[in-house]
Order: sequence, then structure tokens, then C-alpha cells
Amino acid sequence: MQFTSQGQKPLVKIENIAEYDGQSVRIQGWKCKGRPSGKIQFMELRDGTGTIQAVNLKNLVTPELFDTAKHIGQETSLEIVGTVSKNERAPGGYELTVEDMAVICQTEDFPITPKEHGVDFLMDMRHLWIRSSRQNAILRIRAEIMRSISEWLDNHGFLRLDCPILTPNACEGSTTLFETDYFEGKAYLSQSGQLYNEANAMAFGRVYCFGPTFRAEKSKTRRHLMEFWMVEPEMAFCDQKENMEIQEQMLCHVIGSVLKNRMHELQVLGRDIERLQRIKAPFKRISYDEAVEILRSKGVDFKWGDDLGATDETLLAEDSDTPVFIVNYPCACKAFYMKPDPERPEVCLCSDMLAPEGYGEIIGSSQRIDDYELLAQRIKDNKLPEEAFKWYLELRKYGSVPHSGFGLGIERTVAWICGLDHVRETIPYARMLTRIYP
Amino acid sequence: MQFTSQGQKPLVKIENIAEYDGQSVRIQGWKCKGRPSGKIQFMELRDGTGTIQAVNLKNLVTPELFDTAKHIGQETSLEIVGTVSKNERAPGGYELTVEDMAVICQTEDFPITPKEHGVDFLMDMRHLWIRSSRQNAILRIRAEIMRSISEWLDNHGFLRLDCPILTPNACEGSTTLFETDYFEGKAYLSQSGQLYNEANAMAFGRVYCFGPTFRAEKSKTRRHLMEFWMVEPEMAFCDQKENMEIQEQMLCHVIGSVLKNRMHELQVLGRDIERLQRIKAPFKRISYDEAVEILRSKGVDFKWGDDLGATDETLLAEDSDTPVFIVNYPCACKAFYMKPDPERPEVCLCSDMLAPEGYGEIIGSSQRIDDYELLAQRIKDNKLPEEAFKWYLELRKYGSVPHSGFGLGIERTVAWICGLDHVRETIPYARMLTRIYP
Repeated sequence: MQFTSQGQKPLVKIENIAEYDGQSVRIQGWKCKGRPSGKIQFMELRDGTGTIQAVNLKNLVTPELFDTAKHIGQETSLEIVGTVSKNERAPGGYELTVEDMAVICQTEDFPITPKEHGVDFLMDMRHLWIRSSRQNAILRIRAEIMRSISEWLDNHGFLRLDCPILTPNACEGSTTLFETDYFEGKAYLSQSGQLYNEANAMAFGRVYCFGPTFRAEKSKTRRHLMEFWMVEPEMAFCDQKENMEIQEQMLCHVIGSVLKNRMHELQVLGRDIERLQRIKAPFKRISYDEAVEILRSKGVDFKWGDDLGATDETLLAEDSDTPVFIVNYPCACKAFYMKPDPERPEVCLCSDMLAPEGYGEIIGSSQRIDDYELLAQRIKDNKLPEEAFKWYLELRKYGSVPHSGFGLGIERTVAWICGLDHVRETIPYARMLTRIYP
Repeated sequence: MQFTSQGQKPLVKIENIAEYDGQSVRIQGWKCKGRPSGKIQFMELRDGTGTIQAVNLKNLVTPELFDTAKHIGQETSLEIVGTVSKNERAPGGYELTVEDMAVICQTEDFPITPKEHGVDFLMDMRHLWIRSSRQNAILRIRAEIMRSISEWLDNHGFLRLDCPILTPNACEGSTTLFETDYFEGKAYLSQSGQLYNEANAMAFGRVYCFGPTFRAEKSKTRRHLMEFWMVEPEMAFCDQKENMEIQEQMLCHVIGSVLKNRMHELQVLGRDIERLQRIKAPFKRISYDEAVEILRSKGVDFKWGDDLGATDETLLAEDSDTPVFIVNYPCACKAFYMKPDPERPEVCLCSDMLAPEGYGEIIGSSQRIDDYELLAQRIKDNKLPEEAFKWYLELRKYGSVPHSGFGLGIERTVAWICGLDHVRETIPYARMLTRIYP
């Protein structure tokens, strides 16, 4: 559907240009590159959906237009009327022979040029940096990942229910929580919607929340952001085995959608696409016990009972084509709400999904404790404020059922699928220890 | 797809029950109502996707089962095996004749009973209240509204890009902002993603953000929440006329989707469905000037230049079948970034969309100032911190284009479509002046 259809020529998005081969069309966009060469000018034009090469032939346009086109700077906004033609040597396979052109905002000295810039400079210029082809590709893949996650969940009986960001209690300790005044009291920015999801699952069966979460962690790693997005599905009448199957299915759908709808962007990023194509369910399950053995065999001095660190995660998944599940961690290194394995209560019915290629944990998951007495005891043992957990505990009193859920971190998933070194490029405006601008 | 397929009988969601007429199926859920009557028990069962009447006939089941069923309380969780049959007198049109039953968690004294409870009590019990049929219907409609908004935008060339919640400056005054420490400095919870959306639109053409926003307003009305969700689309190369057409199209798609996919829920709420069915584009456009005349003709003592209040909005839209646009407000009562009408600079190229039936503003929108000098002047005139707006202003220096956008408030839209008096029921866990629990 076109809304601005005032002109006679069809107004076209570059991503759809192949449908207009041989036709004269209008394109609105920005100049990203140019190369004048005597009687012919090549100009690369972007419109947010793609780029196309516009060719300006001196004998086809007015002398004024030809002269104007020679002098417009990078990021000048313009509208071009031109004829689409197939050209296998042109980037994208099509080019536009200019018939007419209108400059909207002549731009000089755009601060980001094709030369190399430092990361700090680029992050300061994030509002402009996102116009570059690489950042465009990453964020278009991010959007596809988020879209396809919702699509899969919506099509598999999950209902989206938003969990609150402002929460009343610093439940698991306030050291990594952002705090704010809330009228007469205090509120804390949520690190997870899970506890609320559990209440929602008892009311709606299968649910998910999908929103920003916050962690005030004084860490400066390539895997951490202060504000990041998570999707957290939660399922009533679901054990840990089925929980892992759901994760696999969902993730395979996401990879498939990116391969189907964002192939061009993966190519722009130079991603090893075959590695993504090899990902098929089922993923390998490795018990924590086995993981300890594997780490030791690789020379790591690892103590049973410790949580896995980033390096350990890399070592465990590096030889695998697909993500791997590490299952049955010791309860002592995991959250209080995870259900102990009835046959071996020192380990939990839980799993972390590690991405291949060293990208580490992208999903954490578990079956939740559904027994009232046991959960009450765990809250006590962990010295958590009982009053704050009253409502949460009540879920085990009124119609408790076996239930499970997981949380997938969007930025780490984007980093992995795009093949990026650092999560700062996976979100439009990253919030880091020393970065909250723009 | 069924993941827990251990049992021999198909595990079925109640919303799909019609597909299993005559078959023996398994259902997992909770008892919501019961009525024993001699040799036959009627039990209403819910599973989050719907409710069904289970019929327990004394001569068909074991005496133990019949006795157990008689004594289980409201919200007991259970699994039932039974035969589906059409029964026009049963609520929902189908019933289940019980063959076998397993109680998972026997529940006593569920605090919310069919009797009337006060609102404060119910809000304290929100984690359980959401199990009731009315709350279930509202939140299932909410999910459909959110799903269909994303669907429409994704299918019309909009790319989803998330805007940050933690923002560095109290741009428009800090009195209604939640503030938090951010390592060495301060951060504020975002009231809108719009400014970032504008940068994104210059990079991607058509974009939207969809997340929670925050307003620390000391107001206690039936239309205000401290934490609420907004979808904010922003379009490069788009004027205010097209902006309004996009809003109409999107909203009609949403209404159509709710009517198509959530008819049962609208019926549960007793919504006047014909009023929703009558909504068709185009919506009426009323200029602010005309609005002043209408209000005066209805006896309101209204001064040209004032913003419209809730009562005014009700009066303006009450006679209309569809939402109405109020266009061209005085610039003085609107935000600094709105583009003045070139032919009459004291009014803006902007509109508010008012829902019918007294629900007031659900969308605010405008074309944005695209001229560098004018925007710099407006920032100065409004005494805004120039340093904080540096990046925003730069968008008018590097490839500025005509652009427009809007913000739709989810909770008010849900309240209107569901026909609710108060927004507190439109979100799973409402955050209000005196309410942050559970």
C-alpha cells in the first residue's frame, strides 16, 4: 500500500526494486556514496530498506541536474525518478538510470565517512552510525529475530502478557538493581518477569513476556548491557524435558526466518551462513557432571559445584555445530525457585543453552518448584523477605501444577546470529557502564 | 504441535475443543465452578484458553472418583479424560463426559469467590484475580491488540527498533520522571521513544518502537497509569496527512482482528459489538477551531489556545460512530518539536485521535519540525538544555526530510475496545499512585 501517491510514477522501496524492472519509478532516500567520472556519475542511494546504484548520464539530464548531483555530499536527502534495469555488475543486481532528481536537504561534512573511526566516536554518533550498511544489517536482523520469536509463540498457543518493570521489592538483593523513588516508597527496575509469568501461566496456560530488563552490574564485558531485552515464556503443565523441546523448536524457527528473510543482511555482515544452516533440532544435552569432565579433559581446573564461567561455556560448545544444553546444574549455584531433581536432589531440573562459536549462554531455563512447603523452605533458606514473596508462594497453594519456563536474551542471540564480537552493536542505543548517550 | 504426548488420548486445549467432537480427549486445567446434584455433577473447567462444562455421571465412573469430584474446591488443578460432545445448552456449545480424572493440587478456600469483592481486595489478589473469566477475556483481547498492531506494521514496511528506557536527561522537566542513579550520574525512565525514533526513521525509513513508558504523575484518574505501554511508529518522507491515514488503517486492522479472533471474549465482557463493527475509515477530521465552536455550542466556556481536557474530549467524540481526529492545535499547547502549519504558523500539523463513547485520546501525533534553525529556536524558546538535544538537532543537519509519527497508548485502547471504566484492568499488573503490589 502506498500512501504518498501524489506523483505519477510509483513510489518504490529499494527492497522491492526487482518488481519494477524496466519501469520508471520514484525513490526517496539518502546518498551514501558517490563517484563522479566525467560524463557519468555513480551514486549509491539508501532508503533504509536497501541500497541501489543510481547512474547519472550527462546526455540524459539537464546540465543543472548533472552539476548539482556532482556536488551533493554524503547523507544528502533526495528524491530520484529513474528507470530500473537489471545489471549483474551493480551491487544488488539492479540500477537506476536517473531521469530527474530533487534535493531535499543538501548535506555537508557528515561526520561518519568510509574511513575508520574509533568505537567511542561511533557510539557518540550512534544516532547517525545506524545509517551505515553494517549497522543497518544488524538491526534489521534484530527486528527479524524479535518478530519471528513472537510469531512462533503466538502460533503455538502462547499468550503475550506484559510483566511490570517497576517492582516493589529488591527480592534477590539490591546490589544489581536500579532503584527509584515511587511516591511514598521505593521501586526497583525488574531483572526478569519470571515470577509474574508464573502467576500468568496459572491463569492462561502458556504465556510470555517480552520487554526490557535491567541489571546495574558494574561489569564491562562484551556480553553485558545494563538494559537488555528478554523474551520469557512460561508454561503450565510442562516439565523440563518439554521445556527444552520448546526452546529448540522456537530457536530453529528463528534461525530459519533469518535465513529466509535476511539473507542479504547476513551477507553484508560476512556471516558464515553455512554454520547457521547446519543448525537443526535436537540439540545436544550435556549434563553438568559431564561438562565438568569435559572441562577437566581440556585442562581446566574446575570444581564440581561452581557455576560455569564465560570461558567454560566457550570450551563446552566450541566443537558443536548446534547450540548445546547443559542440564542439571547443582542447585547451590542456581536460583531458589528451581525444582530439584526428585531422583537426585542436589541437582536441579534446569538447563542453560549455550550458543556455538563461543557466544555462551543465550537461554536459561528450569522447571519451577511447585510444592508449597519446599518453596517456603527455600525462601527461608535464602533469607528472602517472606512478605514480598507471599503472592508468589500462594501460587503453590491454589491449584499448583508442574510448570517450567525460560528466558532468552535478545542481544546475545543477535550477536551470535550476526557473528559480532560485542553486544553494543546489537541494540539501537546500548546502555553500558560508561555509556548512556545519546 | 503437542509436546506432552505421553498419554494415549490427545491432549487438547479448550479453545480447540470443537475439532474433537465425539472423541475421547485429555484436558489439563483448573476447576472454576461446580454444582453437584445427586447422581450427576457439573463442573466448569478452565485451562486458560477457554472453559468447558465437564459432566460426571455416577454410573460411568468409579465411586472413588465420583466422591473425590464432589469435594474438590474451586481452583483445584486436575487432568480429565472425557468424551467431547456437542450440547447447545452448555456454555460454549460443547461438554465433556468424564471418564477419568486425576487431581493434581487439591485447593481449599480460594480467596476469590463468585461473590462480590471490593476493588482494593481484588487488586491485592491480582495474581489470582487474573484467573477469572472477565480478566481472562480482557487480557486475551489486550494480547490480540498488541499482536495485530505489530502484524500490521511488520506487513507495511515498518521495522521494529527498540528505544532506550534509561535516558540521560530530564529533557522536558523532571517533575513527572522517575529518576535513578546510573553509576556516576543519573538516569531517567523514558516517557516516549519518539526522539530516538526520529533518528531511526532517518536510518531505516519506517520504524516503530513498542515498549513500556513511565510517567511519575501524581494523578489518580481512571485513565492514568505510572507504567504503560505505547507503540510509536515514525515515518521518514511522510507528512501529517499520510500520518493520519496510517493511523486509521492500523486501527481498523486492530479492530478487525479483535472482532475476528476474540469475539467470544467480547461477548464475555458484554461489549456492544455492533459499535465496534461500525468503525470504518476514514475517521472524521475536526479542526481545533471547530472543536472550540462545538464545545461552546454545548455550553462549555472554552478559551481558544487551551488544551482539551478529558470532559472536552468526551463531548467532542460522543456523537460519532468512529474515532475522530482533532487537528491543528495551537502550537502553544503542544510539544516543541511539532511542525507549525506553514500557512498559519500559530497552529501545528498535528492531531489527537479521540476514541468514541467517551474514552478520550488514544493517539497523539504530528509532523515534526525538519528545519534546523526553527528547531534550534524552539529548543531555546522552551529553555531546554541545548547540549542534551545536540544529537536530536543534528538530524536536521544531515539529510533532514519531512517526517511524522504517532504514539498509541495500549491501555486506553484496551479500555475502549473492551468497554471498561478504568485502565487498571487493562494490564496484568497495574502501577498506580498507591499501588505497586503484587
